[in-house]
Amino acid sequence: MKKLNEVAVDEVFEAYLLIKEMNVRTSKAGKRYQQFKFRDKTGEINGFLWDTNEYTVKTFVANTVVHFTGRKELYQGIPQVNQIKLRTLSDSEPSDPQLYEKQGVIKREVLEEGISEFLFLIKQGHYARIARNLLEKYREEFFTYPAAKSLHHDFAGGLAYHTLTMLKVAKGLLEVYPQMNASLLYTGILLHDLGKVLELSGNGNTQYTLRGQLLGHIVLIDEEIIKATQELKIDDADEDVVVLRHLILSHHGQLEFGSPVRPKVLEAEVIHFIDNLDAKVTMITSAIDTLNNGEQTPRVLGLDNRNFYKPLI
Amino acid sequence: MKKLNEVAVDEVFEAYLLIKEMNVRTSKAGKRYQQFKFRDKTGEINGFLWDTNEYTVKTFVANTVVHFTGRKELYQGIPQVNQIKLRTLSDSEPSDPQLYEKQGVIKREVLEEGISEFLFLIKQGHYARIARNLLEKYREEFFTYPAAKSLHHDFAGGLAYHTLTMLKVAKGLLEVYPQMNASLLYTGILLHDLGKVLELSGNGNTQYTLRGQLLGHIVLIDEEIIKATQELKIDDADEDVVVLRHLILSHHGQLEFGSPVRPKVLEAEVIHFIDNLDAKVTMITSAIDTLNNGEQTPRVLGLDNRNFYKPLI
Amino acid sequence: MKKLNEVAVDEVFEAYLLIKEMNVRTSKAGKRYQQFKFRDKTGEINGFLWDTNEYTVKTFVANTVVHFTGRKELYQGIPQVNQIKLRTLSDSEPSDPQLYEKQGVIKREVLEEGISEFLFLIKQGHYARIARNLLEKYREEFFTYPAAKSLHHDFAGGLAYHTLTMLKVAKGLLEVYPQMNASLLYTGILLHDLGKVLELSGNGNTQYTLRGQLLGHIVLIDEEIIKATQELKIDDADEDVVVLRHLILSHHGQLEFGSPVRPKVLEAEVIHFIDNLDAKVTMITSAIDTLNNGEQTPRVLGLDNRNFYKPLI
Amino acid sequence: MKKLNEVAVDEVFEAYLLIKEMNVRTSKAGKRYQQFKFRDKTGEINGFLWDTNEYTVKTFVANTVVHFTGRKELYQGIPQVNQIKLRTLSDSEPSDPQLYEKQGVIKREVLEEGISEFLFLIKQGHYARIARNLLEKYREEFFTYPAAKSLHHDFAGGLAYHTLTMLKVAKGLLEVYPQMNASLLYTGILLHDLGKVLELSGNGNTQYTLRGQLLGHIVLIDEEIIKATQELKIDDADEDVVVLRHLILSHHGQLEFGSPVRPKVLEAEVIHFIDNLDAKVTMITSAIDTLNNGEQTPRVLGLDNRNFYKPLI
Amino acid sequence: MKKLNEVAVDEVFEAYLLIKEMNVRTSKAGKRYQQFKFRDKTGEINGFLWDTNEYTVKTFVANTVVHFTGRKELYQGIPQVNQIKLRTLSDSEPSDPQLYEKQGVIKREVLEEGISEFLFLIKQGHYARIARNLLEKYREEFFTYPAAKSLHHDFAGGLAYHTLTMLKVAKGLLEVYPQMNASLLYTGILLHDLGKVLELSGNGNTQYTLRGQLLGHIVLIDEEIIKATQELKIDDADEDVVVLRHLILSHHGQLEFGSPVRPKVLEAEVIHFIDNLDAKVTMITSAIDTLNNGEQTPRVLGLDNRNFYKPLI
Amino acid sequence: MKKLNEVAVDEVFEAYLLIKEMNVRTSKAGKRYQQFKFRDKTGEINGFLWDTNEYTVKTFVANTVVHFTGRKELYQGIPQVNQIKLRTLSDSEPSDPQLYEKQGVIKREVLEEGISEFLFLIKQGHYARIARNLLEKYREEFFTYPAAKSLHHDFAGGLAYHTLTMLKVAKGLLEVYPQMNASLLYTGILLHDLGKVLELSGNGNTQYTLRGQLLGHIVLIDEEIIKATQELKIDDADEDVVVLRHLILSHHGQLEFGSPVRPKVLEAEVIHFIDNLDAKVTMITSAIDTLNNGEQTPRVLGLDNRNFYKPLI
Repeated sequence: MKKLNEVAVDEVFEAYLLIKEMNVRTSKAGKRYQQFKFRDKTGEINGFLWDTNEYTVKTFVANTVVHFTGRKELYQGIPQVNQIKLRTLSDSEPSDPQLYEKQGVIKREVLEEGISEFLFLIKQGHYARIARNLLEKYREEFFTYPAAKSLHHDFAGGLAYHTLTMLKVAKGLLEVYPQMNASLLYTGILLHDLGKVLELSGNGNTQYTLRGQLLGHIVLIDEEIIKATQELKIDDADEDVVVLRHLILSHHGQLEFGSPVRPKVLEAEVIHFIDNLDAKVTMITSAIDTLNNGEQTPRVLGLDNRNFYKPLI
Repeated sequence: MKKLNEVAVDEVFEAYLLIKEMNVRTSKAGKRYQQFKFRDKTGEINGFLWDTNEYTVKTFVANTVVHFTGRKELYQGIPQVNQIKLRTLSDSEPSDPQLYEKQGVIKREVLEEGISEFLFLIKQGHYARIARNLLEKYREEFFTYPAAKSLHHDFAGGLAYHTLTMLKVAKGLLEVYPQMNASLLYTGILLHDLGKVLELSGNGNTQYTLRGQLLGHIVLIDEEIIKATQELKIDDADEDVVVLRHLILSHHGQLEFGSPVRPKVLEAEVIHFIDNLDAKVTMITSAIDTLNNGEQTPRVLGLDNRNFYKPLI
Repeated sequence: MKKLNEVAVDEVFEAYLLIKEMNVRTSKAGKRYQQFKFRDKTGEINGFLWDTNEYTVKTFVANTVVHFTGRKELYQGIPQVNQIKLRTLSDSEPSDPQLYEKQGVIKREVLEEGISEFLFLIKQGHYARIARNLLEKYREEFFTYPAAKSLHHDFAGGLAYHTLTMLKVAKGLLEVYPQMNASLLYTGILLHDLGKVLELSGNGNTQYTLRGQLLGHIVLIDEEIIKATQELKIDDADEDVVVLRHLILSHHGQLEFGSPVRPKVLEAEVIHFIDNLDAKVTMITSAIDTLNNGEQTPRVLGLDNRNFYKPLI
Repeated sequence: MKKLNEVAVDEVFEAYLLIKEMNVRTSKAGKRYQQFKFRDKTGEINGFLWDTNEYTVKTFVANTVVHFTGRKELYQGIPQVNQIKLRTLSDSEPSDPQLYEKQGVIKREVLEEGISEFLFLIKQGHYARIARNLLEKYREEFFTYPAAKSLHHDFAGGLAYHTLTMLKVAKGLLEVYPQMNASLLYTGILLHDLGKVLELSGNGNTQYTLRGQLLGHIVLIDEEIIKATQELKIDDADEDVVVLRHLILSHHGQLEFGSPVRPKVLEAEVIHFIDNLDAKVTMITSAIDTLNNGEQTPRVLGLDNRNFYKPLI
Repeated sequence: MKKLNEVAVDEVFEAYLLIKEMNVRTSKAGKRYQQFKFRDKTGEINGFLWDTNEYTVKTFVANTVVHFTGRKELYQGIPQVNQIKLRTLSDSEPSDPQLYEKQGVIKREVLEEGISEFLFLIKQGHYARIARNLLEKYREEFFTYPAAKSLHHDFAGGLAYHTLTMLKVAKGLLEVYPQMNASLLYTGILLHDLGKVLELSGNGNTQYTLRGQLLGHIVLIDEEIIKATQELKIDDADEDVVVLRHLILSHHGQLEFGSPVRPKVLEAEVIHFIDNLDAKVTMITSAIDTLNNGEQTPRVLGLDNRNFYKPLI
Repeated sequence: MKKLNEVAVDEVFEAYLLIKEMNVRTSKAGKRYQQFKFRDKTGEINGFLWDTNEYTVKTFVANTVVHFTGRKELYQGIPQVNQIKLRTLSDSEPSDPQLYEKQGVIKREVLEEGISEFLFLIKQGHYARIARNLLEKYREEFFTYPAAKSLHHDFAGGLAYHTLTMLKVAKGLLEVYPQMNASLLYTGILLHDLGKVLELSGNGNTQYTLRGQLLGHIVLIDEEIIKATQELKIDDADEDVVVLRHLILSHHGQLEFGSPVRPKVLEAEVIHFIDNLDAKVTMITSAIDTLNNGEQTPRVLGLDNRNFYKPLI
């Protein structure tokens, strides 16, 4: 069995793969086919099944692991698989989707432990209570949801992974810029994307919920903070609550990116930078990951249509 | 006594005027002076008192009516008054600020009656209850606050006046476009700017509150709706609540104007139009109000720096 | 026989349909096919005839009614028909294109009557004469042209229908904002898009004329007003003529939308709003028209790529 | 007597100067003063008369030549004159404004001759007749108006001067790019800014006319071409007329600069370039004209706020 | 044998054609095919070979002349060839690629002579030496490289041709604007795009080099000038060197087009104009070249998506 | 003696202050005055000396320490001093400018040591040699120049301080993102702004040099790297040199901010983030530094005109 990152272009190969996404499409000429996104721990690749029928449509669906035979090709510079044959697994074969998720090395235990350590670093009382209340309320979702529908951290646990990485960056910055309020910064990071557990449908064929589309994750977590303060009998007119909400509302940095207010507090500006930095580093790393040194990526939409180069040095 | 709209350029005149705004400033050369915005029912004019002292600074403050003597001039094309003398009023003189407010013809009773009529037109149960709950909670502020710090409807009752005008426009549009949901549209309009009673400090030397600056009126009214649903035992996951919040969150039309989501429902798009239309018509009307036919205004900042012409026809 | 709005996805159906547009295309691989836009009163759908020949190319052309058999499918989220068979109609079958036009309920008589009523509301002499002169000169085109090549009001009579709806909105606004000049506003609306009768080739496979492309409908109606004033012996240096031309020249609101001047008169700003509002409401209504409640549209290009939701409420 | 370009900073000097512009202003503190733009053949300078009275306001007006005494200074990096004394001229002194105009070396005869030569190069019949008709109709204005209110070619005859320079550039380009239609290009250039004789009030304290503000010079010359074709019995549906109007309508190059259509014909694109080039070269030359080599200008608003350097080489 | 500009749409024809570009592609369905850009002196056309094999992939490559049989078609309004048969040439057939290049009439001798004439017009010592040094160093590349990968002047010698045309335009402008420094302007033009010989891989299947992608041609020629001054013992702190480098660094006119500084010297602004003008005129001419009068092009990406019209006049 | 951060608004105070900048200005009315920027370790304030003469102009110049008496005021929300009296210091008074510089706690020794530590962390041979070569060549300037003319790090040693802080941030990020090349990242940071020693004139009344204005610091350091490779016999076509130059050329992140290429290598993107982050954190910290908790700054130009709040928490 091959891993995805071991397959050469034009090679026909066999592998166990997780179906990450599956959509039934109709071609312009009216022919039905299945579009797949396959994944194993080493990478991800799109492909098409042209001879499709009721059985294949019902069997080869998202979150299923399959035995795959097919050929790797380049289409407009981007790898895909074709001439696909799929079959279901027998009991003796490795069918647990978790085995195929990207970043699978970050086990949930490790994520939970990492997040937990940072919770202890929140010294300010209201912040510690709000953060614990909401992380407890959405614990299951927080550690299993992706951080986005696509673009970056689009895997089970991606939300917690992105949050934990940001916390680590923040810790380093607090040493260089000690004028920042650590409790505020950590709480802001912990909660900043938690609204995604209400905005998205979960991992695997991730969709936006109606509330996600009409209200957005920024407003949804703001609502959760309001409710938490009520439950915890914290007055939401207290300045610490107002400032925390400001951090989260403004963390997209610019109005045109969906924040209803721009950062007006030092820590708010910094959260925006850390969020943006982690998204960019993750997207670039992911884009050059499967390249050989000396090669470059096709243009990447989420990176302003730039292509990135992986140096020989 | 003259009214402001009867005074010619270069004329020295006497009048009773309301001090709408007063700020103590220091010139570049270090000299202290008072900057005023005066108002009567017929208009508004800025001016400066150069010989200032402790008495004048304490006496001639915002929301006070004074007896005014001075000269009207043009400064960079815009009228102002200078060579000012001010005195306080005796008991026999008309000192009630309400007598000098713009649009003073719209009495509070009329506004309350108008708003009340539209409340009866909200047939959908949840919407009617939410609207009544919040209008009751903030009744006093709603009928006395301006709709903005400056630009348009910046007078006592301006918020209710702007809201009522929008409701009237909406009523006309519902006849032409019956496909719209009247309850949704009316509730959205009634609440869309109500967050300003928390964003602004009130009428007269209007300032932004801290919550206003860090959260903004859109998020503040969203919070109030959440609290109202909790108080009224309405499930905020109900679609009608989600859609209503969407209308209000998206009513600035574009992300770059501070809405965290863009309109995705017909009535949301229409509220944005009505709001924008009423703001523009009010600003233009106000800008050309004191002109003679055949004249034009200086460039108006809030109208994309255009100047407007008042035709002879 | 089915109506278009009664057909389910994946259903094979028979219907009488009007061919609204037909283009002969060549695929990348060099194969010729026909692309259709079909329409009946209830909707519109695209489709392809892959087995095409000289006969089908000459017979199944725009503005022809055909007997249709085929299958409805989704392609990239948008409905289309495929596996098409077409035949011409016998004499006993309903072959009048008018029977299949969208909005067919608005009969020409109703439009003419509606427009005529508003002509009577123009009290100012010059305006009444200019409006009547030009509507008379282009009466036939005005009542049969679409308002646009696509996007909105792209049906026979769409131009008059759009104009009449705007007049109705204007009437409602004049009650709320009586400071506007009704004669000016009505004349401006009546003429604002009349240049389209010179810009476009007519209804059915609508194309831009050379003058349309090189001069544009705004300049073309301006030219017509100049000629009308000459014919009617009205001095075009008169301020009322200048202001009317200003309204029409500025009605796109912004230079980047093709207006050579920005609105500088109250009524000019308002026409721009009404025009924009009617376009948006029509596009949104049209986009959600065939949805069930609780569904949303694909992204709509003409609406800034937003998708719209049709609420359950 | 000094020339303006001979005076050093901080020098007190005497000169004969033309008052190019005069405005009576009021300072923020309510004091009246006169603001001047003075000019002689070698340059231009602003200044203020602080001790003003009825006599000075009536006497020292635009288009008057005066005897000047005063001091040259820098204000925010820009030269101005102060401590001014003015007196009127005796009969023996040189009071003809023409003697003080910038570019005065270009005598009207030279301009007329230059323009006339190019008229002979227009071989196409309709174009030759339209160009002659309109240049004849507005001959006096064409040779005495400035090309703009400020920014560039803001002197008597500036319009004709700018036009003639553009024609010369076009002649050079026709040798390099012979695929262009010379008659079309020359006619387009000759007429492109002629609408300014209707948009502006003339030379000296130049103002926009009402038609200029509400319609703009592009539409005004388009109107004149329509009228010329009618007078000359040329059918304005003829393609040559349509293309000529297109050139002029599109000569600002972009919609956001006020052209209602973008250039869609080769010669239209080229006119836009020549116009833009001549404006830029003129503005830069004018900005560095009075500098010594090795110096640079303050930031120039009309040149995107850049400052320009005059090299030593 | 036909020339490309003699072939009608839907015509099957035979011709000798140069393969300008060839890429092996895979279709979405996984099928391999060859994509060609063919060229002869009269034009250029794309096409596909669907039945491809190892032999065709190795034989029919870029910079080869072939005997072609196939059919001309329109695909989305743009001509292409299909149903292609290709064979290699016998010795008696015309196989020299130069015979098929666009603009082939400009022989290299003519280009060399033209460039040489302008070298003699550079009177300033440093400039003459730097220009000669670098043109000598890269003589072969300068006269054989295209000026761009596509868009304009994408043929062997295109770089020298574009440079020479710009020099001719500059000569004409120097007569109209004698205030410019001819040596500076000519040297700037000669060197402005010379960095492309390091940025691009050469003529035929032109690619960007790694240095081209990571540094860009503007920085690459700047580096060459620095090295030339060192070799020639010219102090690069001398103002003439600084100003020359400024011209070249700023010749894209705007930061967003890749110039690290904006033009701040008259000649810098003018080079930018000439460069832009020649690119535009060349692209438009090329786009309308094969049209009949009265036709228009499809939308052209490099011309802001405009379509251009070729008038009947 | 007071420190600047101890003085209240409206307080008259005495202090030793460093004159950071001094300019002689002329008022609109022609009166000469001196504009100062004063500084001590605790802050910075502008002020004016209205009674100026030859002696004061020559004596109270940039980089001088003076004994100051005057009054602190607010002008348009920003503190300034007025009613100033200045005298020179006696020998017994503290006249060393270094004692008054912001961030004076960072002694040069500390900076040198910090930078030196990071030099040891550069393991790649070429990078280590280039970095050492250039830091040695410009050691004196590097440790005494400001990082900018104003906005941020505008104090002696600011350039080295900014560089060192960025290196510390980079070190923290390398722990979180170990996929980055440390040698490349550190070398890029060390050199990224070194061109400023050629772009700026030094500390105190900092000006742009001619090369700074016409070439910019990005191109100037690129030139220095080229020269260093020549001196060190490193082939500048080596990929490591190309990638290093790319990092520095692209570190402004966007073309419109003056980078001739956008980041296309992971470390290039990250340097841009660190640079931007340090600039923002420094500007915000500096803006809120002298505030009391619960206050906010006036709008800050360099921070997109936002005002920042210093929370009570």
